Amino acid sequence: MIGVAVVGYGYWGPNLVRNFAETPGARLISVCDLKKERLVSVQARYPAVEITDDFDEVLRDPRVDAIAIATPVSAHFRLAMSALMAGKHVFVEKPMAATADEARRLVDEASRRKLVLAVDHTFVHTGAVRKMRELVESGLGDIYYYDSVRVNLGLFQHDVSVVWDLAVHDLSIMDYVLPAKPVAVSATGMSHVVGEPENIAYLNLFFDNSMIAHIHVNWLAPVKVRRTLIGGSSKMIVYDDLEPSEKIKVYDKGITLNGNPQKNGEKVYQMLVGYRTGDMWAPQLDSTEALGVELREFVNCIEQGAVPTADGHAGLRVVRILEAATQSLAQRGRVIELERARRIA
Amino acid sequence: MIGVAVVGYGYWGPNLVRNFAETPGARLISVCDLKKERLVSVQARYPAVEITDDFDEVLRDPRVDAIAIATPVSAHFRLAMSALMAGKHVFVEKPMAATADEARRLVDEASRRKLVLAVDHTFVHTGAVRKMRELVESGLGDIYYYDSVRVNLGLFQHDVSVVWDLAVHDLSIMDYVLPAKPVAVSATGMSHVVGEPENIAYLNLFFDNSMIAHIHVNWLAPVKVRRTLIGGSSKMIVYDDLEPSEKIKVYDKGITLNGNPQKNGEKVYQMLVGYRTGDMWAPQLDSTEALGVELREFVNCIEQGAVPTADGHAGLRVVRILEAATQSLAQRGRVIELERARRIA
Amino acid sequence: MIGVAVVGYGYWGPNLVRNFAETPGARLISVCDLKKERLVSVQARYPAVEITDDFDEVLRDPRVDAIAIATPVSAHFRLAMSALMAGKHVFVEKPMAATADEARRLVDEASRRKLVLAVDHTFVHTGAVRKMRELVESGLGDIYYYDSVRVNLGLFQHDVSVVWDLAVHDLSIMDYVLPAKPVAVSATGMSHVVGEPENIAYLNLFFDNSMIAHIHVNWLAPVKVRRTLIGGSSKMIVYDDLEPSEKIKVYDKGITLNGNPQKNGEKVYQMLVGYRTGDMWAPQLDSTEALGVELREFVNCIEQGAVPTADGHAGLRVVRILEAATQSLAQRGRVIELERARRIA
Amino acid sequence: MIGVAVVGYGYWGPNLVRNFAETPGARLISVCDLKKERLVSVQARYPAVEITDDFDEVLRDPRVDAIAIATPVSAHFRLAMSALMAGKHVFVEKPMAATADEARRLVDEASRRKLVLAVDHTFVHTGAVRKMRELVESGLGDIYYYDSVRVNLGLFQHDVSVVWDLAVHDLSIMDYVLPAKPVAVSATGMSHVVGEPENIAYLNLFFDNSMIAHIHVNWLAPVKVRRTLIGGSSKMIVYDDLEPSEKIKVYDKGITLNGNPQKNGEKVYQMLVGYRTGDMWAPQLDSTEALGVELREFVNCIEQGAVPTADGHAGLRVVRILEAATQSLAQRGRVIELERARRIA
Repeated sequence: MIGVAVVGYGYWGPNLVRNFAETPGARLISVCDLKKERLVSVQARYPAVEITDDFDEVLRDPRVDAIAIATPVSAHFRLAMSALMAGKHVFVEKPMAATADEARRLVDEASRRKLVLAVDHTFVHTGAVRKMRELVESGLGDIYYYDSVRVNLGLFQHDVSVVWDLAVHDLSIMDYVLPAKPVAVSATGMSHVVGEPENIAYLNLFFDNSMIAHIHVNWLAPVKVRRTLIGGSSKMIVYDDLEPSEKIKVYDKGITLNGNPQKNGEKVYQMLVGYRTGDMWAPQLDSTEALGVELREFVNCIEQGAVPTADGHAGLRVVRILEAATQSLAQRGRVIELERARRIA
Repeated sequence: MIGVAVVGYGYWGPNLVRNFAETPGARLISVCDLKKERLVSVQARYPAVEITDDFDEVLRDPRVDAIAIATPVSAHFRLAMSALMAGKHVFVEKPMAATADEARRLVDEASRRKLVLAVDHTFVHTGAVRKMRELVESGLGDIYYYDSVRVNLGLFQHDVSVVWDLAVHDLSIMDYVLPAKPVAVSATGMSHVVGEPENIAYLNLFFDNSMIAHIHVNWLAPVKVRRTLIGGSSKMIVYDDLEPSEKIKVYDKGITLNGNPQKNGEKVYQMLVGYRTGDMWAPQLDSTEALGVELREFVNCIEQGAVPTADGHAGLRVVRILEAATQSLAQRGRVIELERARRIA
Repeated sequence: MIGVAVVGYGYWGPNLVRNFAETPGARLISVCDLKKERLVSVQARYPAVEITDDFDEVLRDPRVDAIAIATPVSAHFRLAMSALMAGKHVFVEKPMAATADEARRLVDEASRRKLVLAVDHTFVHTGAVRKMRELVESGLGDIYYYDSVRVNLGLFQHDVSVVWDLAVHDLSIMDYVLPAKPVAVSATGMSHVVGEPENIAYLNLFFDNSMIAHIHVNWLAPVKVRRTLIGGSSKMIVYDDLEPSEKIKVYDKGITLNGNPQKNGEKVYQMLVGYRTGDMWAPQLDSTEALGVELREFVNCIEQGAVPTADGHAGLRVVRILEAATQSLAQRGRVIELERARRIA
Repeated sequence: MIGVAVVGYGYWGPNLVRNFAETPGARLISVCDLKKERLVSVQARYPAVEITDDFDEVLRDPRVDAIAIATPVSAHFRLAMSALMAGKHVFVEKPMAATADEARRLVDEASRRKLVLAVDHTFVHTGAVRKMRELVESGLGDIYYYDSVRVNLGLFQHDVSVVWDLAVHDLSIMDYVLPAKPVAVSATGMSHVVGEPENIAYLNLFFDNSMIAHIHVNWLAPVKVRRTLIGGSSKMIVYDDLEPSEKIKVYDKGITLNGNPQKNGEKVYQMLVGYRTGDMWAPQLDSTEALGVELREFVNCIEQGAVPTADGHAGLRVVRILEAATQSLAQRGRVIELERARRIA
């Protein structure tokens, strides 16, 4: 049995506690939060779980093998680093850290100590996203573009921009689904509340080849949209997370190129591009709750010394893009190169 | 009666001919095209209309008061300038010209000769777009953003990129709907067919204030989308041109700012932003065919010496953005300032 | 404080328990069920609530003022009648009873003893349905038709047909929304599983005037539909319960009759009917959980001696239609008159 | 070349004329209508086609091999019978005739004279409906139900009810798609305009087995719906004619029956029914204009002595149901048996 402590019982912590309580192989030892009323609420629902407002107590507890961190981003690094240095495995909310440098140091520390470091990129454990990765691997052909829209009304954050709040989902999904990794990023956006971070933003991601990716995030949209298009040379995907059942649609559509255009004296206005339109197909998806899948995998990785799907490297890659996007936002979309040497590491 | 000649009977010309034939106050004199088979087809359907493959003949014809030009963009300037110099009023397809310089010279020439110069920004004559302008003027409050998506599969153009083919619609609509004009533009995009222009592109438009505009155009999408969001401080609009009847939806949604946030020693995590959610409303729209409305207005402007809704200045503003976007595309999204002095002219 | 006991902790019981536990003015005393494992589950979540498998114990408990019954329909009458005879107020799941005769006896008993008898027609407490009633009262004009579709895949019941399981919702909503009550009913349907009750059915409801109502219910549909159309002479409503936010849409559409048709010798083919198409409007709806609203009302009615929105008479009217529909189903849609004398009672 | 005359140039006639003008193997000889202004309009668009207001002239014309009839229903029989008796092949609008008796006499006359008698059941020539038939033949398993909704606002007819105007489409589609034929029909409906036929109606169709069919038609609905569900034991279809491209969706959904339920002493509440949910699939459809396909088939049948897809027997089966439905409407839904002996004929 892996002993687990959850640190932070605000918005997401209760989901971690509920799921760890039901994860085979895990034993929920304690929950830590600075607010008394939250701890009272834990005790009411989980009388057998210990509560504390002292993180050091958790670090010292020999029954605790792993610590799950669900605090504001600014505290991730300090808590996760302390946990690793105390020899605990770590499961940390996304974004993994507030800077790429912090993220890199966590990766290094976990690696040195041979501890499991998992980042809660929840979506990559959904049936829909796993199916997309499978399709990209096996059937889309060359990937031309990745386009994602994640907009709705609310909830404005005060410490981070909409990029860190919403685009982090798209970036973690894209990191998992696409084999290629971006080499540069640019972002434009705007704040419409004085003194607050950007509430609307557009990200461009550049790759080594002709692929292009784009992410639109917005806290101030009248309708909720969660839609990703992936265009491939053989097939294309529409992923609509708001669809109750057919979240993934695969279109057998595309262009066919006529390699031998008929040229003649006059200007060539003939079409060289043909269009191919075939069936659409919505595969049946696994509907198991993603967080449950993810926590089982985390426990399993600890037991078996394996690497989680969303490990520290994935977390670092995402934070590196968020950081570069933030720099670009401040410069009206200047292209920021993602450091290649380190990227590979 | 205003005598009209239509030059170019390819994709769009037949619509002009059909509508001019039914426009009160207009008399369709002749159709000019270089291809014989097209002229034969005109003759079959409109036995009373003269046909010719000689543009000079049209220019010399004293019965012709106005010339409508529906040729490829590259020929717009030469034909329109000749028409103006021959004293003819001009109705020209969008984009108005291949460069901002050409467009400006047409504006100047028409102005000097006191001739009507209209650009076929068809959408601004639809009931939906006219309603949007009305709403922006009267009820949205401060405009925060304008976001438009125009994607589908096909038809690849060979002489111009997707920006000149699709974004031209969004730019002409935005020019009409929003009082503010952009001061700079950046664009990223990609071509996925070797040797061809970009088939996917993302445009950012910057304004003098905190408004932001963004346009996504794509010839290689598996689904057709024609959707614009306009976010205002009082209300927000969703314009979906594919909806059969409720194309415009007005949402009484937004944020309310708490002007007196409670500050204290610790970091302020309290929400300063409140959310307002009210009724949605889809106004009844005029469904008259836009091209008919537009041609009646053109004839009317000639008769009354009035200025059309989409005049040469509007055409020029749009071409200037297209030109700047094209420059930006070639430089991975570098911001291109739109020349202000000339913009105002 | 009103002391409450919940009898039956299967599918719906847990919702009653959770809501009663949070209803101001109510104190949840005990939960009764025949299955031990269910009672264990109650105890784990609500340590302060007493559990028992002996209904008589509940009846004898002087702290219990009201009993909520969430058992299979076949047991409703026996349990509710015992409760009333023990002087307890009753909240009973829908359908209120297995026969109109049983329902009527419950109504009479509650009336005689001046006890509150409420039926759990949950939907009539939703913001959407309350808005519909308001609209019907104030703005639709004469009601022409009420058409409802409630279909999906599953869950097949074994003791009752799809009419008792799904149409009961539509009938209770219609009973609340429309002032007119049906005078006759016919129903057709089919069972596609040997030995099981009908899994698809169509109900017609006839009224004293030219209104018509129709309900389509189906356990074997590939898609989920929850959609009601109400056609009035002034306006029309579409109620789509699956819409996340705009569940109610009001259409300013209809026909206008030309009262003075031009007649002449030959057959009158001229249109006498004109069409009116105006705005569509989706009012903001109260999104409070319906069951919470309902239980607060139940407690309130007990305290104040008031009559609940869905009282025993409403429950009886619905059961009477279900019973008649079941008779009609067995006779391939023969029209069954609803007894008028008793209906009024 | 088959010489063709079109009789009736009102609402649908122009489509026939336009399509016959482009049908290989057909030569459009003349158009006949009683109204001068309609004939003038034919002449303007088709100068080579003769016009006449004298039907007898058409009958006598030896160049005319086939006559297409697009007049009001009440005239179908007289014109079609005269055409057959004059030795002409006949293509007649749906519904084929005003009574089953008329329809039967046309079938008999055509059969006796070995002339082609085709009924314009246009939908059965669309890619969507042809695909449905293919799917029903090969992959749905046993058909459980056929449910169709065809509602919108307008156009009220004055000579026939909504059943003859809208349900005729569903009946002709169903007749083509399903191998089984109904044995009885019932219908309820209502007129909301005094003195006019029913504007809303619900039809039930009964079969020899447990299949059930239902059709809902309405001229007074605020939204347009064209949706058919077909439930089979293996797969289910949703046919939505308003979808721009994915009109047919095939769901691998259904129930699986547990043939060996575990019984024990207590009442059996265990589920005997399991649910199966698999992929959804939208096959690519042929998008050729249905009327063109149909007229080519008509010409072909004349040339080759073949039987059209929608022959007089199909037309008769549909009229027989319409006639029975009309009788049933007048009797509040009484079940009308379709005469079996004649049905087979």
